[in-house]
Parts: sequence; structure tokens; C-alpha cells
Amino acid sequence: MSKLMPPAHPFDDDKLKEECGVFGVIGVADAANFVALGLHALQHRGQEAGGIVSHDPVEGFNSARRFGYVRDNFTSQSLMQTLPGPLAIGHVRYSTAGSKGAAIRDVQPFFGEFAMGGAAIAHNGNLTNADALRRELIERGSIFQSSSDSECIIHLMARSLQRNIPERMEDALRRVEGAFSIVAMTRTKLIGVRDPMGVRPLVLGKVGDGWVLSSETCALDIIGAQLVREIEPGEMVVISEKHGVESVRPFRPQPAKFCIFEHVYFSRPDSIIGGRSVYETRRQIGVELARETPVEADLVCPVPDSGTPAAIGFAHESGIPFGMGIIRNQYMGRTFIEPTEQIRNMGVRLKLNVNRALIEGKRVVLVDDSVVRGTTSRKIKEMILDAGAAEVHFRIASPPTAWPCFYGVDTPQREKLLAATMTEEEMRQHLSVDSLKFISLDGLYRAVGEAGGRDNNCPQHCDACFSGEYPVIPSDMIQKGFQLKAAE
Amino acid sequence: MSKLMPPAHPFDDDKLKEECGVFGVIGVADAANFVALGLHALQHRGQEAGGIVSHDPVEGFNSARRFGYVRDNFTSQSLMQTLPGPLAIGHVRYSTAGSKGAAIRDVQPFFGEFAMGGAAIAHNGNLTNADALRRELIERGSIFQSSSDSECIIHLMARSLQRNIPERMEDALRRVEGAFSIVAMTRTKLIGVRDPMGVRPLVLGKVGDGWVLSSETCALDIIGAQLVREIEPGEMVVISEKHGVESVRPFRPQPAKFCIFEHVYFSRPDSIIGGRSVYETRRQIGVELARETPVEADLVCPVPDSGTPAAIGFAHESGIPFGMGIIRNQYMGRTFIEPTEQIRNMGVRLKLNVNRALIEGKRVVLVDDSVVRGTTSRKIKEMILDAGAAEVHFRIASPPTAWPCFYGVDTPQREKLLAATMTEEEMRQHLSVDSLKFISLDGLYRAVGEAGGRDNNCPQHCDACFSGEYPVIPSDMIQKGFQLKAAE
Amino acid sequence: MSKLMPPAHPFDDDKLKEECGVFGVIGVADAANFVALGLHALQHRGQEAGGIVSHDPVEGFNSARRFGYVRDNFTSQSLMQTLPGPLAIGHVRYSTAGSKGAAIRDVQPFFGEFAMGGAAIAHNGNLTNADALRRELIERGSIFQSSSDSECIIHLMARSLQRNIPERMEDALRRVEGAFSIVAMTRTKLIGVRDPMGVRPLVLGKVGDGWVLSSETCALDIIGAQLVREIEPGEMVVISEKHGVESVRPFRPQPAKFCIFEHVYFSRPDSIIGGRSVYETRRQIGVELARETPVEADLVCPVPDSGTPAAIGFAHESGIPFGMGIIRNQYMGRTFIEPTEQIRNMGVRLKLNVNRALIEGKRVVLVDDSVVRGTTSRKIKEMILDAGAAEVHFRIASPPTAWPCFYGVDTPQREKLLAATMTEEEMRQHLSVDSLKFISLDGLYRAVGEAGGRDNNCPQHCDACFSGEYPVIPSDMIQKGFQLKAAE
Amino acid sequence: MSKLMPPAHPFDDDKLKEECGVFGVIGVADAANFVALGLHALQHRGQEAGGIVSHDPVEGFNSARRFGYVRDNFTSQSLMQTLPGPLAIGHVRYSTAGSKGAAIRDVQPFFGEFAMGGAAIAHNGNLTNADALRRELIERGSIFQSSSDSECIIHLMARSLQRNIPERMEDALRRVEGAFSIVAMTRTKLIGVRDPMGVRPLVLGKVGDGWVLSSETCALDIIGAQLVREIEPGEMVVISEKHGVESVRPFRPQPAKFCIFEHVYFSRPDSIIGGRSVYETRRQIGVELARETPVEADLVCPVPDSGTPAAIGFAHESGIPFGMGIIRNQYMGRTFIEPTEQIRNMGVRLKLNVNRALIEGKRVVLVDDSVVRGTTSRKIKEMILDAGAAEVHFRIASPPTAWPCFYGVDTPQREKLLAATMTEEEMRQHLSVDSLKFISLDGLYRAVGEAGGRDNNCPQHCDACFSGEYPVIPSDMIQKGFQLKAAE
Repeated sequence: MSKLMPPAHPFDDDKLKEECGVFGVIGVADAANFVALGLHALQHRGQEAGGIVSHDPVEGFNSARRFGYVRDNFTSQSLMQTLPGPLAIGHVRYSTAGSKGAAIRDVQPFFGEFAMGGAAIAHNGNLTNADALRRELIERGSIFQSSSDSECIIHLMARSLQRNIPERMEDALRRVEGAFSIVAMTRTKLIGVRDPMGVRPLVLGKVGDGWVLSSETCALDIIGAQLVREIEPGEMVVISEKHGVESVRPFRPQPAKFCIFEHVYFSRPDSIIGGRSVYETRRQIGVELARETPVEADLVCPVPDSGTPAAIGFAHESGIPFGMGIIRNQYMGRTFIEPTEQIRNMGVRLKLNVNRALIEGKRVVLVDDSVVRGTTSRKIKEMILDAGAAEVHFRIASPPTAWPCFYGVDTPQREKLLAATMTEEEMRQHLSVDSLKFISLDGLYRAVGEAGGRDNNCPQHCDACFSGEYPVIPSDMIQKGFQLKAAE
Repeated sequence: MSKLMPPAHPFDDDKLKEECGVFGVIGVADAANFVALGLHALQHRGQEAGGIVSHDPVEGFNSARRFGYVRDNFTSQSLMQTLPGPLAIGHVRYSTAGSKGAAIRDVQPFFGEFAMGGAAIAHNGNLTNADALRRELIERGSIFQSSSDSECIIHLMARSLQRNIPERMEDALRRVEGAFSIVAMTRTKLIGVRDPMGVRPLVLGKVGDGWVLSSETCALDIIGAQLVREIEPGEMVVISEKHGVESVRPFRPQPAKFCIFEHVYFSRPDSIIGGRSVYETRRQIGVELARETPVEADLVCPVPDSGTPAAIGFAHESGIPFGMGIIRNQYMGRTFIEPTEQIRNMGVRLKLNVNRALIEGKRVVLVDDSVVRGTTSRKIKEMILDAGAAEVHFRIASPPTAWPCFYGVDTPQREKLLAATMTEEEMRQHLSVDSLKFISLDGLYRAVGEAGGRDNNCPQHCDACFSGEYPVIPSDMIQKGFQLKAAE
Repeated sequence: MSKLMPPAHPFDDDKLKEECGVFGVIGVADAANFVALGLHALQHRGQEAGGIVSHDPVEGFNSARRFGYVRDNFTSQSLMQTLPGPLAIGHVRYSTAGSKGAAIRDVQPFFGEFAMGGAAIAHNGNLTNADALRRELIERGSIFQSSSDSECIIHLMARSLQRNIPERMEDALRRVEGAFSIVAMTRTKLIGVRDPMGVRPLVLGKVGDGWVLSSETCALDIIGAQLVREIEPGEMVVISEKHGVESVRPFRPQPAKFCIFEHVYFSRPDSIIGGRSVYETRRQIGVELARETPVEADLVCPVPDSGTPAAIGFAHESGIPFGMGIIRNQYMGRTFIEPTEQIRNMGVRLKLNVNRALIEGKRVVLVDDSVVRGTTSRKIKEMILDAGAAEVHFRIASPPTAWPCFYGVDTPQREKLLAATMTEEEMRQHLSVDSLKFISLDGLYRAVGEAGGRDNNCPQHCDACFSGEYPVIPSDMIQKGFQLKAAE
Repeated sequence: MSKLMPPAHPFDDDKLKEECGVFGVIGVADAANFVALGLHALQHRGQEAGGIVSHDPVEGFNSARRFGYVRDNFTSQSLMQTLPGPLAIGHVRYSTAGSKGAAIRDVQPFFGEFAMGGAAIAHNGNLTNADALRRELIERGSIFQSSSDSECIIHLMARSLQRNIPERMEDALRRVEGAFSIVAMTRTKLIGVRDPMGVRPLVLGKVGDGWVLSSETCALDIIGAQLVREIEPGEMVVISEKHGVESVRPFRPQPAKFCIFEHVYFSRPDSIIGGRSVYETRRQIGVELARETPVEADLVCPVPDSGTPAAIGFAHESGIPFGMGIIRNQYMGRTFIEPTEQIRNMGVRLKLNVNRALIEGKRVVLVDDSVVRGTTSRKIKEMILDAGAAEVHFRIASPPTAWPCFYGVDTPQREKLLAATMTEEEMRQHLSVDSLKFISLDGLYRAVGEAGGRDNNCPQHCDACFSGEYPVIPSDMIQKGFQLKAAE
């Protein structure tokens, strides 16, 4: 599968990847059409596959799950006509916590037929006790169809003693640990839940007489919906055409720990998180970076496309001119299978090309959002030097990424993370650049609106990938040998 | 066909479209691999289809022609292995001067078997006397297989009295009128030609011991080739492994008329034309625009992606901050078939979303490369106003587009061009914006390096789309009723 | 789906259809290759879809399930290489007892992961209490993935209290009612079971050091396996490389009721059932028919292809010459979508054509295997008369089909069966033929080797489709309103 | 290509293969639908590819050419709707006289745009001077698009000095040598031609107010058309809605030489040739065989399916019982790619299985239509002996095939023909059978209705494959080194 349906950004192998986006609508004609549009707007959260389940009073539940982009699948009249009704949910995914080999049965939403009717769920996040739950459920006689951690939820629901589906879902979710933002549906209800710490985003919107749930606000915009509010950490909303939005709190209250990397990279710049524009936050990171790590240079150049807002902020704050020194090939949606060894080494050129005339002879500040393995940073540095740059200074819009994420983000093993094994100076030497600076954790917290920086006693966000402080114990991974940061 | 393989940028219906890119390599192992890479880098010149012909001393000629993107077709080992040999040429196209219904037989390169061996040709441009030539050739007994104007060339070659293929090509090209940059091949030779006025680009590069011909320099970069020089207007180069590059001049000398729109929009910003960086030229257009048409405002915002360099130039010259007020969906490679009427009106949101937090309450300068029908400009203006902008000022990096191109660019009929029927002030009212200004023709000429502006007696470029002054009489079109600009 | 993957014999809509074939191999290299061959030989038992599961000590379980013919799917090296190992089972199906819309999740073998390891099962037959079982299992928290009755078995196994998989299967099968011949596998064992009455066939074979289970002997021939014996009614065999074939008897003994229609139509003529050649049995039916219902005629002509052996027997016994009066189009593997109303009426001509020169002026005996709805018989009669036959006499190699089958055969609703609503004479008039005669039930029993005919007190076979005497009460169907034959 | 689209009968590699079937209709609504049906009925004449061209007064010419079976391509409403109009022709082909690699541009009908309008042609047969013609045409400047000999005709037509298309076709056909039955069309005319000796068949039919041309009568039956007469050798018919059928004789008269192998194998048994039923002719061959080469045996068994009529005749004449000793797998439409060496040797079992119970202990007469390489005969003999036959006697319904055909039949090189290198007794030993007998040439002529046998001075048919007497000199082949039979 991976050969046929490679990740959208081969060159972005060197990025952390958000694993999923979720979207649901109730109370509009042809709800699945809205879901298709919403998933298209959330495609950056998962490019491998997508699925939609709809319900119609006459036709019942229908579903379609496909590998590939939303725009290539959920656009044909013939397919969309098989998904009628005023209620639908959908999911895009990058990959699951499951097995490597992608299979259509791993594509969400998952559907279960219960005694009192069917339900479908779509999950963004990752359960940290899924392995243990799975073993327990199999012991009791459940048959798993996928390798996904998310399937546990539907089996827990099937075995719940509660009478109605929302209560069964509460029952099930009290057994799971980890991060989850869930959009689910029954025949008449659209349901949204966020885990007690609210690690992953989920927002509520209004479109005409209908209601929308979405991972990000950018997907409200595409269907012309208005943002109502964010679903709160630990909140479950049950939305029906009859009763509107009802809110319950199934979990014990905990301090919120929203993923700070959503601000840095995952979310789209035109989304609003916690009342703040993601674009503006990123621009502000650039401003903070320019203040924390100034440098004499002739050109501030973003690593496209994610480094652009921070580069604009850096240029503005530093007074150094901003320019597009690296041009991205617009047609690089999927990988180019390099046919010969000779050509393989040209990899990065398939996606990026240096704007030689702009770079030549200049001292260049390259602004990127993060350094993961460092492989891409090295190649870009080489291209810039080949084009005749006088100096290369990397400025990174996030602190060093030194710890893997277990809450729904695809990260390499810890050993592969450059910052897990090197100091900043070692990394600079490894990349052979004139300077390499990361924004500080406090600077990042300031940029996301915490004027006083990080509260080290009780951090305002989940920043485990930078700090190694995991707000939920990753118990399955510890079982498999992962070692937490030693207490200091 | 058009339903299955829509233009890559549905939203860019409102752009002029370059119709073709050509690329050829001789003297390297597996030349077709290089051609695939080169075509990938030229994909912006034609997204509908692509083809490659290769020649191998043992396997002879082989070809593959496919609809869709290069990266989706010419990437599989199994296909590329059918194209062996040290000599290959390729072509990407948007659409041809032929019939509407796309057919694989219209996809270039075209191949002909002559008495002295086969030849393949790939053509960028358009022949203005193709209809007349076609009638004449059919009268003489030629069988046309495609609806393409370019096929005339191969039939003219077949009927030439000359002994070898390059001479037959000279013979044929002396009969055609219009714009052409051609890459062709025989069993042992790679051939490049530009029409006497050099309307379309063609450059010569060197990769290892081999030679490359390409529409643009950005496609040299991707294979690590060095730019040697441009093929000159009216020049034919015949390249063989034995004799290297030989240059002939088959045509009567004429003043060069390179397409000025290549600078404005068609070419990639990282290409070099006539020694000038396209990016830098576009930035300079922005500088000129800011000087010619200043405005009080709070934000300079590009219409992505083509307006970005001019917006950077405008911001720099005007001192108004630059910001990404419009965010482009990265996954919009092909069209999204809008499934319902209700959603159809949301069209533009599938591709672009406004960065509301940045725009709100601001006086915004929108910098775009051109206005063709004006349909897109209206929609963008509405989105910007919906997002709460205080004022909207359009600045356009080209003069009003008032005349169709007959030299290889897909333009709407004259009546559809906004500038053909309205004054600038009428256009401003039509778009309902606070101001609308275009760069002057002289300003554009200055930006492309003509310090003294346009020489109105003998313009240094082809600018027929702006001026209506056609350097080659479009005789087929006049036959069909097209009216030239009245002499003043 | 049904439009894309129509039944193989559109013209054979007027036949009863066997729903499944099963095949399994243990103890040979690349067992899945053998299974593919076996399923190809069993394709007549199910043309809609096929699936294979294999197990390899290193690679674990792998599966592939596809719509369409075995030869079109399970033949590519690339697919077969994904199914490694010395143990594999497979299934072909016509349609299931499930919902109308075919879905890949309904294609067997089904796989379940249990606490002690995985198992896969393939089922030929039909469970008559599946609806009730399904309701019970859902109440207990099982999640069904398919609409197939067979999935009940795997859920019952998952919930069994027994320790190993064969015992869990025994446990599960004691809860089901109806007809089943099952081929199943664990990581190390190949398992075969027949229901207590042995309604559907299942045979054991030997190939090299390995063992084979197959619905019919013709699939042993294709892989060069030797027939060992039939699995007995109510027997379960558990075959491992270590212990060879072990036999258990999980069920209370009952009189055997093998489906008599397997002799008449379902099984391939080159298979052996109960030591008798199916071809010879059918020829003998023709002999019996000629004795029971003699007629003066000039030509005995089979309705191809299934009527041929009986026609040969009839011709031999009657002394009337045998001839191929109806020629079958060899390329009629799948349906021809008739494009216009005008052509729709030509339906039968797409598959059959009359050999006019042979038929003209003759009194023709047409020998067919069965009459279901009678629609085909009418069309054939018309073709024969159009071709100039003097008389048409139908001789049918089975008794009137007056009752639906609930044991794994796709039959129309009772009202659609011609013999359910008409007497023999009414049928003759309905078909407008000179004579119409069916073999008697006793004659059929004699032909299958019961010299004394049918034992009406305890029939030696299941002949419910002729007699209405159902050996297993079809409880789900009675729940849905089906009325059994009134006691006489 | 050959791996993806193998011959329909892999096992029939050991047969001669007719290369093409042609069909055309004028004067009916949606003529292309009739052509699709006709081609389906002619599928046995060419399984590799098919094409249809239609003409509609409004929509002009349209065409569709596809690899694969008619029923798999020309059945979708969406495709057939692209082929409107009251006039259409079609073609099925096995392979052409062209290059090995199949390409869609080799699939007929071929279309040419002439000064006075377009024409399409479909050709059954083979031109024996195509190589020389092709060279000449290329010298004059024609561009060939295919590797097919038939394309010469359209280029000759394009260069004709005549004024209308039928006259241009006459002009062109006077330059070609070899065998041809052609169905062609202009905007208003359907044209049929047979070469002066009438080697390949072509018949005229009537359907409603319209007219039909077809290779065989079986394709008239499928659309309910009536046979009017055969097109005569050397006749051209030009059919228009206005003037009906007009007949001309463009060639010098010659003795007719209809291909005798059409009677033996190529044509469908339900077709009528020269007023004789093909089935009856084949049955009569069996009768002749039984008279010429009697044998004591217990069973006459056809090699399915082509040997059946002769076997019936042999059984009837000899009094030995007829039985289906070999059963054919109905699902063997295309090849089964044997995945392992071990299984490869089972090849023949994929298509045929021996009806062991019938064969065992018997002296078997196997009746086959021809022996080409002898490879299949050997395998069948082995299967029959493995099944326990006491004796195996081959009776062949044609004389020894000792010479290749150059008139539109795909034959192996002469060296590969068993009868080219061995005597009858050597062949018997090679096949290791108890006896092997072929019908005599005279016997064959008697069976096709020549009561006096073959006229050796001027044979009534083309029988070059048996006699080596070629009625048209195969000049291209002689150029390539083929040696004619030495004069005796």
C-alpha cells in the first residue's frame, strides 16, 4: 500500500504528522456533502484516507471509505448520492496507531450495530491503554476487524450495560486513557467529545438551522458556518434536531493540556484556536525569535510553506528584507518514484527549487517551523549554499523536538529525533550552518498568549514533545519498553 | 474527458493558460528518466497530459502518452523501463488548438516514420496558418490522426524533398506561421528550434556529457543541469553525441518578440529568462506598481500564489506591511466536483480561505498578476469584505488584458475579456472595489529590464494581449472572422 | 454492485444457484496457489466473489478478497506473493443470505482474532436460525461487520468458553441450525466439518505430503490430488502437519440428507459424489426419462450446457439421433448490458443461437435439467419454432421445482416457481409446447443409485425443492411468514 | 501487453487462429448497438480487441477502440451513447500482421479524413504485398500510425485521383494483393468488398429497413436480420439509405478460392456458408472420417468444443457410443497465470478435466478438428491414459496442416507445424497413441459438398495450409525468405 499511496509530502518525512481530522453535521439537507467539504479543508490533518457515514430516515446508515484525497473520492455525484440524509460524520487520517500495512478496514468512521440501533464514531487522538483494552475485549469474545486503537471504543460501547448510545459512549470513554476528540453519530444524534485534558481540538459551529463539529475552524469557513465555541476539555455535547445542543461532563475535571504543537505546525494558519489566529501566533513566534536570537543578515527566507508566517514576523521585527528564496513545486501532491539511483539523490529538487538569483551572495536567515530528524534541513542548507549564499542561519519556530508524542501524532522513535541525542551546538555542526537557534519554551508560550511564559509547575499546554513531561502516562508504550524522563 | 480531467486550478479559470512545455535530453543513460523529471518541473505549463518518446539503439523508438500529471504516470518502474535509451524528448500540454474533446492521439510528441527513419516532435506554441496547411495536406493525400495544429509539421516533413530529417524539418518550418519552440529527435539527434521571433522560450543546458533542451531553466535545475544559453529566435540546434551542438539559421532574420506574459505569469518564478530572474522581475513589477499607483493602506496581501513576488515588491516600496491574508488549500490539485447547487456557490472557498484575524478592520491592498474575466477578482473581493476589511484596493501586475493570444496561450474569446469591453473605472465599479489600478505598459517594460520603457515603433516583446498589436497575422482566425485592431 | 458485477449467466437467471464453494490445503509450499486453482475449478459454485486466507509461520495470517472471477484476481504474482505459507483456505460465493448490496466485507473467508490466536472460516450452506442468533449476539455486545449468516459462527466461537479453536468451533456449531460444509483454519490446523445431515458436499484429498478439503472432487483433479474419502455427515476433521487427520463427531447422529440437486445440476459433471460419476448419473437420468416419457421424434437436442449428459442418455435409450441444435456463445461469461429496448428483447440470442439447418422440419426433443420460472424455456421454445421445428417436446431431468431451498441455494420466492402454481399440463400450455414431461421423484432416486426409488418414510436425500419436505425447520423464514406444506 | 491481455484460449495455442471479424449496419436507429451485438457473435474470430465507428448527421463520425471482449467494453450506456447515428461498422481482431506489441492504434476500424469527407474501414484478411506498398507510400510522404497491413488501404485511398470514396477504394484495392473482406463506411454509405478469389467470407443481410454486412451469418441471427446472400468474390456493394444496394465488379474475374478451413474450424457451427450448415459439414466430416479410417472402440469422445460435431458424425456412422469424456471449465475465458513451476505443468487441467468414470477401461476415439504443433494432442492423450483408457485413437477432422496461411490466419512458422516435418506414422509415434488418422483432402472436399472430391487442376477452395498450393503469391514473405513448395 505504502508504495501506491505514499504520504503527500515525501519531503516532509521530516515533519511530525497530525494523524486525524474529524467533522460532523446535523440538520442540513445532504449532510454528507458538507462533510466532504469539511474534510477537504481538514486534509492537512490526514492525507492517507478518508471516510464518511451518513444516516437518512428512509435509507438508514450508509458509508464510504476510501484511500486517497477527499477531492479525488468524495466528489462524484454517483458516490455522494449513496450517502443521503441530514446527519453525517467523517474522518481523514494519516495513519493509525495500528499495523503498518494500510487496509480499508482501518479507515474510520467505525460503525457498530447495537441492540438499540447503530452508531458510528470518528476519533482524532490516540489511546494510551489501547493494547491492554484490546486484550481484555478479545478475552471476552469481541472480534476486532481493524488494527486501530479507536476500535476499542466501539467494542466497549457494545458491551456497556447502559441503555442509550450516548450513555454507552460515556461508559466506554471512562475506560480509555489518552487523547481523544471524537465525533460520533446515532440515527438521530450528533455527538462530540474531548478528553478531560482537551489535548486535541474540537469546535462547534452553526450552519443555517444545523450544527457542525470540526477539528478546526477553517473547515467551518469552507461551508459558511459560524464558530459558536470550542467544545471544552472533558465535555460531551449531544446534538439532535429536536433538542439542539445538550452538554454533559462525563469525566472528573483535570487541568487542560491543549497540544502546543497545533499552534506551531498542525493547524492551518487560517484557523482560530482559543480565540487566537494561528497565523498571528506563528507570526508572533517569528517576532519572539528575532528578539531572542538576532542575527546580521541580508534576507529572511521561509522554508515553504509552513515557515512563512514566522519568517514574516522575523523579517518585520528584525528589519531584514523578506523574500521567497525557495520555490515549491505546486504539483508535488504525491511522491515521485525516483527511477534510478542517479536521480534518487535529486529527491529534494522534486519539491523545492532555490531562487538562485535572489540568494546569491546573500547572508540568508532560513525560518522553519521545526527540526525533527534534521535530514531536510541539511538538504535545504546544501541547496542554499550551492546557489551561492554567503551565510546560512537557521531560526526554528519551536523548541528542540526531543520526545515522541503518544497522543495522536506520528513521531519517529526517540533515537531518530536529532534533539534527543545532540545539544544545540552539536546540531549546528551536524547541519554545518553558520548559526542554528530555536525559540525558547517560554518564548513559545508568550507567542501563544501566555504573557508570563510557561508555568513550570503546571504547564498550560501539553508540550511533551519538547519537555518530556507527559500529562497522561503512555502505559502501552511503557509496557513495550519506552523510558520516561528521569525525575530531576 | 473534460469532466474526468479538469484543469488543475478550477479557480484559475480566470487565468490565461500556457499551453505546453517541452523537454529533451541526449547523451545520458536512461534519458527518459531525465525527461520525466524535466516535465514534472514544467507541469505548470500543461497539466492535462504528457508524453515521452525515447530511442535506444537496440530497442528502437518507444513512446508513452498519458492523461494526467507527470508524477502520477511517468513514475512507475514498469512504465519507465519501456522507454530505454540515451535520447528522449517529452511534452506536457494544457490543451491544443484542436477539438475540445481530448483524445490520447492528440497528446504529443508526435511520431512519423520517414523513408530515412523515424522522428518525433514536441511543440510549444501555435501555428496561425494550420487550418490552411491542413486542408492543403489532405488534398495531397495526407491522413491526419489528431486534431492538433502541430501535426501539420510532421506531414510537411514527410513530404519534403530533402534528404535528411533536420533539413526536412527546416523545409517544413519555412511553410508554417506563428509561434513555435520545438524539441524533436531522430535516432541519433536531438533538435531544438525557435520561431524567427522567438515568441516561446527554449533553453540549452548541459548535464554530465549530455545535452538538454527545455522550455525553462527551472527544469534544468531539477536534473542538476547547467544552463548553457537560450536558443536564439530563428535558430535551430542539431545535437548529436558525435558532433555535439550544431547551429543553423533556417529563417529570414526578424526582430525578436518574446512573450512578455512569460515574465508576468507563465514561467516559474525560479526560472531565468534573458539573464533575469523571473521572481526578481515580478518583485520589480510590484515596485513599479507602488510607484505608479500609490495608496494609503494597512496591509499588502498577495492573491496566492502568483501574486506573491509583486506583493513583496509593492510592500517593500510602499512601506506597508506584507501579510498572507488569503490562505490557499494545498490539496486543491484538481477540481472538487461540487455536488449540490447550495454548495456550488462556495466554489472559491474550496481553494482559498481568508485569514480573517489578519484582515479585519484593515485597509487591504490585494496584488494579483492579471485580470482576465474578472470573475475571480469579484469573489476574492467579497471574501475580503466578508472578513471585515475596511477598504479593498486591487493592484494588478500587468496591463489590462484586452486581446486574445494566438501564439500558444489559451485565452477566452475577446468578448469575455473584461478589459475588452470596459474602461478601468468601469472595471472598478464592476468589481465594486475602492480602487483598481494596473501597471502601465511602460512600467511593465521597465520591470523586465527595458529602462526606457516600450519602443512603440518596434516593441521589444510580443504584448499583443495588452496592445492588440499582433507580430504575426493570425490568418486562420481572420478567416474565421476575428477582427484586428483598427489602425489608428 | 449488481450492475457492475452481474451474475455470470444472465440467461441462467432461470436456474437455481449454488451459493458457495470451499477449498483448503495444508502441508504444501505456497498453499494459496493450490487454493486459487481449486477455487477456479469450483467457480461454477459461486461467480460473484472469492477470497483466500493463508498462514505462514513468519508472516502470520494474510488475506485477499475480491469481486469477480478467480482467474481475473488470484493470478497475479504480486497478489499471490502476499499470501505465503503452507496453509490456506478459500471461498467462492454467488451471493449470501445477507443484504442485496454486495460489499467486500461480506466476502469470505471470515477471520477472527481470539485470545489463543486467529482463525478463518469459509462456509458453504445456509444457517436457518441465523437471524435469531444474530439478535442474541448483538444483545451480548458482539459487533457484526457483514450481513452474512456465516459471521454468526465466528462470534459464537469468540464467546465460547472452550480452550482451543477446534473445540470452540464444535461449541459454536452446536448452536447453529441448517446446512453447512465448513473449511476453516488456525495457525497450524486445517479443519473441515459437515452438518449432521451432510446436506452440502465436502471431500478429503491428498496431494504430496499435504491434505486437501474441497466441495467437489473436480477441484482435487486440477491440483493433481487424490480423493481419499468424503467427510461424513456430522464429522469434523482436524488436520495438522504434525498429527495428520483426526476425526471427531460433535453432533448427535441423524439420517443423512445429501442435496439431490447436486446430482442434477450444481456439481460439475466430472465430479464424483458418493462413488458415482455425476456425468453418469445425469446420463442415467436421461435414460430413465426416455423410459418414463417416450416420444416419437427426429432429434434429441440438449439445452446447453447442463442438459447435455441427460440428452445423450435419452438419445441412446430412445434411439433418436443426438444433435447440437442450440449453439452457445463461448464469450458469454458475463452479461451484455443491452443498450436499447429494441435490443433487449433479443436477450437470449446473446447467449444461444439455434442451429437452424439441423432443426428445420424436425420433431425435436429438448432435454433440460430443470424448470424454475419457465422464462428461459419459453424463449428457447420460440427460437426452436422460429427455426422451423415441426414439434417441440420438453424433457426435464428433474421433478417440478415447487419449493424454495433454505440450505444454501439461491431460489426465487415460492410464487415465482412455475411448478408451485401450475400443474404439469398447465405448464405445458404456458410454454406452448407439444409435450412437457419431468422425471419422477422415484426415477431420479433410481438414477442416483437408489434402485428401489425414494423411501417416502425417510427419504435418502434432501429433496425439499421437489417435495416440500424440509429436513431442518427453516425457523428464520417461518418467522418471516413462510408457510410449510400442510400435513397430508 | 501480452501478459495483460492473453489469448482467450491459452490451451488453444495449438490452433490456427482466424484474425478478424467485420460487421456493418446502415439504416437503423443506433446502428452501433447492432454492431456491438454483431461483433459479440463474431468474437470467436478475434478476441484481442474490437472497435466501432459510427456516423450521425449531426454528431459526425465517432469511434471507440478497446482491448478485450466486446461484452466487456461495448455494453455500457455511457460508451454506446458516444456512438450515435444510423450507420456504423466494427471489427474484432486476434492480432494483426503487424508488430508483436499490441497498441490501441493498431485496432481497427481505421479512419481517414479525405478532401471530400471521412471514411472508415475494417479489414478481414491479409495483404501479401503490404510491406512493399508501405515502403512506397512512406517514400511519397505518408505517415503510418499503425503497424497494420490494412492501413495501406486508407493511404492508397487518400492518394487516389478519383473523386468519390467508393471509387478511391476501388482504386486502392486494385493495388493490393492477398485476401480481403472489407466493410467500410462514408458519411452516407456502407461498403462491402471481397477480394477476387473470395478467400474470406462476407454476407449481406436485411434488418427492418436497414442493411447488414457480416463475416458470418451467426451475427445476422443475433440481431434478427435475414440473410440476403453472400457478397460474391470480386464484388463491391455500396449501400445507401437512398439507393439501397448497388453492386460493382472492380477486379478482373478469377476462379473463387474460399478458405476451406472456415468450414473445418474458423466459422461458428451455427453459421451457413455457401448454403451449407457449418455444423452439418463438420458432422459430415466425422461421417467421412469414420468411413475412411474405421476403428474398433468403445467410446467416441470429442475434444471440446470444436471437435463435437465431427465426433457426433463419427459416432453415428461407426455405431460407437458418443460421450463427453473431457469436460471443459466454463470460466476459462482468459489465461490463468500459473504462479509456480510446480503448478505450471498442470496447465491443461485449468481448462479441461477428464471424466474419469466414463473413460476408465475403455478404448477411446478422440475426435479433434486439427493438429497444428501437436502439443495439446499430447497432453490430452496423457490425461486420457492417466484416467485409465485402454486405447487412444486420434481421428482428425482435417488433413495434416503442413503449410502456413498468409491470408489472414495466424499460423506458426512452417518448422513448428508437426505435419511439415513428420509423416503420419512419425506423428503417431510422437504422440504415442494407438492410432492417428486424418481425413483425406478428397474426403474433406466431399464433406463440404464437392461430391467428386478435389479438382486438382483447379481446386475449388483455398487449401494452401494442407496442399502448399498458394492461389496468391505471398510476395512479402518470399522477400523475407519463405520457400514455396517445389514444383512436382
